[in-house]
Amino acid sequence: MKFDVAIPDSFLYGTPSDIDRTFKIFQLARSLSIFRVENIFIFHDKTINPPNDEINFIVTLLEYLDTPQYLRKKIYPKMDVLKYAGKLHPIRSFHHKDKVPLEDIKNGETRIGVLEKKGNMLFVDVGLDALIKYQGKIKQQGKKISVKLIKKNNLLTAVDINRENINEIYWGYKVFHYNFIHEILKQYSKSKIILTSRYSEFFKIDSDFTDNLKNNTDVDNSVLIVFGSPKFGLNEIFNKEKINIANYNSFNFFPYQGTQTVRLEESIFGVLSILNNLLNS
Amino acid sequence: MKFDVAIPDSFLYGTPSDIDRTFKIFQLARSLSIFRVENIFIFHDKTINPPNDEINFIVTLLEYLDTPQYLRKKIYPKMDVLKYAGKLHPIRSFHHKDKVPLEDIKNGETRIGVLEKKGNMLFVDVGLDALIKYQGKIKQQGKKISVKLIKKNNLLTAVDINRENINEIYWGYKVFHYNFIHEILKQYSKSKIILTSRYSEFFKIDSDFTDNLKNNTDVDNSVLIVFGSPKFGLNEIFNKEKINIANYNSFNFFPYQGTQTVRLEESIFGVLSILNNLLNS
Repeated sequence: MKFDVAIPDSFLYGTPSDIDRTFKIFQLARSLSIFRVENIFIFHDKTINPPNDEINFIVTLLEYLDTPQYLRKKIYPKMDVLKYAGKLHPIRSFHHKDKVPLEDIKNGETRIGVLEKKGNMLFVDVGLDALIKYQGKIKQQGKKISVKLIKKNNLLTAVDINRENINEIYWGYKVFHYNFIHEILKQYSKSKIILTSRYSEFFKIDSDFTDNLKNNTDVDNSVLIVFGSPKFGLNEIFNKEKINIANYNSFNFFPYQGTQTVRLEESIFGVLSILNNLLNS
Repeated sequence: MKFDVAIPDSFLYGTPSDIDRTFKIFQLARSLSIFRVENIFIFHDKTINPPNDEINFIVTLLEYLDTPQYLRKKIYPKMDVLKYAGKLHPIRSFHHKDKVPLEDIKNGETRIGVLEKKGNMLFVDVGLDALIKYQGKIKQQGKKISVKLIKKNNLLTAVDINRENINEIYWGYKVFHYNFIHEILKQYSKSKIILTSRYSEFFKIDSDFTDNLKNNTDVDNSVLIVFGSPKFGLNEIFNKEKINIANYNSFNFFPYQGTQTVRLEESIFGVLSILNNLLNS
C-alpha cells in the first residue's frame, strides 16, 4: 500500500526562526522518504492564511531535500531559504545515488539528472564525470528528469523512463500546492482517505475500516492521509471550506498522549509508522 | 500497557556538534514523554565505548528536559551541556505545571518541587510565589521530589506522595545508566522484551507474540523495548556481552523503508507510535 500526504501550508505556524523551520521541514522530508510517500499535497489554510514566502520556503526546501546531492548546487544556486539546509543530515533515498566512475555504470541504470543544452544537442547531468547525451522527448533546459542509461560499445546515452519502469523501492516525492483541500480530496475515494484529529476516536487495527484497507490487495492503490495545522484542527479547516467532515473517516493515532500536544511533524512520522507497519508487513 | 526503553550510551555516535546532539536528545525526550515511558535505561555500548562526557551529556539533558520549567534554573545552574537547551520547544508533560497564584492551588494538588532548608525547617519550591512548608520523610536538601499540597485554613503544606497515588496520566521518566545490558534484561520476563533490528522479521500485529501482549490485561505491566546503536545493531552489542540474541523476540518495525537508514531517534518514535496504538487504543 502506498501513501500520499496532505498538510496545510500553515505547517510553519509558530516556528519563527529559520533554523527551526529548516529542521521541521527536514523532519517532514525524512518521514515522506522513509515511508515512500509519492505525493505531498500542501493545501492553503484559510484559517491562518500564511504569507507566500512561508509557503515558498516549504515547497522549495522539500524539493531541494528530495534532489540528489550531486544536483543540488546546479538546480538551487545560492538561495536564502537554503541557508541552513547544508547542515542537515542527508536523506539517503534510493534515488540519491553516489558519484561513481563512468566505467562502473551498468547498462540500464536509472539516475536523476538535469537537462543541459550544448549547441544544438541536449545532454543530461546525472552527477558523473561527463554529461550524458540525451535521446528523449523533453526539450526544457534545466528540467529535472529521470533517465535510463544505455551502454553500447562503452558509450552512454540517456533515454526517458517512467516511474512504473524504475526498478527501485522508492524514487522520491512530488510536491503540489492547492488552493482548496477539496481539490485534493476529490482525487481519492472516501474509503482511501484518512483524516487525523486528536478529537476523533482512537485508530483501531481491528475495525471495519482497517479491515477494508488491509484487504485491499492492490499495492498500487494509494491512501491519502490528511493532517491539520499547528493551530487549528481539520474540523476548523474543513468548516472554512464548507466541507462536511462527518463524511470522512477521522482518527486519533496517539491514545493517552503524555504531553499536552503532539507536534505536526511528530504526528506525521507516527501515523506513517503505524499505517506502514499495519498495511505492509 | 506501559513502556520502558533501553538504548546504548553510544546514542550520540556520529553526531559531533552540540546543537545536533541537543536536538537529538530533545527528540528522544519528546518520544519518551508522548508515549508515557517511565524508565529510560542507558546501557554501556562496549562496541563503541563512548567517552564519559558524552554519556553525561545524554543523562543530564534528559533529566533537565523532564524537569518542570520553574525548577530548571535552580537545579541546573549554568552548565555547558545545556548551552542550546534553552532554545528548545517545551516538552509540556503533565507534571510541567504552570505558575499560578497561591490562592488558586486546590487541596490535594500534586507538583514537583525541590527541597530547601531555612534554619531548621524544610520547605519545597514548587514554582509558586512562596516556598511551601514540607512535612515528609526526605531530608536531602536540593532533592527533586513529588509532593501533594494540603490546604487547611488557606495554609498550604506539602506531604510525600508515591507515583501510584498521583492521579495523572503521566508523571515523567526516570533515567538510569547500566554497565551491562544483561542487568536491564533480567528485570523483565522474556515475553515482555522487544528487540528492534533492521535484520529481523517484520513486526506483525497478528502474530502469537503480539496476541500474547494484547491479551495481557494488566495495564501496570511494562514492556521493555531495546534499540541498537547508530553504528552497530543489537546483534553485535549482544555478542560483545555474550548474550544469545536468539533467546529474545526481535522485530523490524519499518517494512520496505525508502531510505538507506532510519535514524535511532526516528526509530524510537516510530516503534513507540506503533506499540502504543496497538496496545492502548
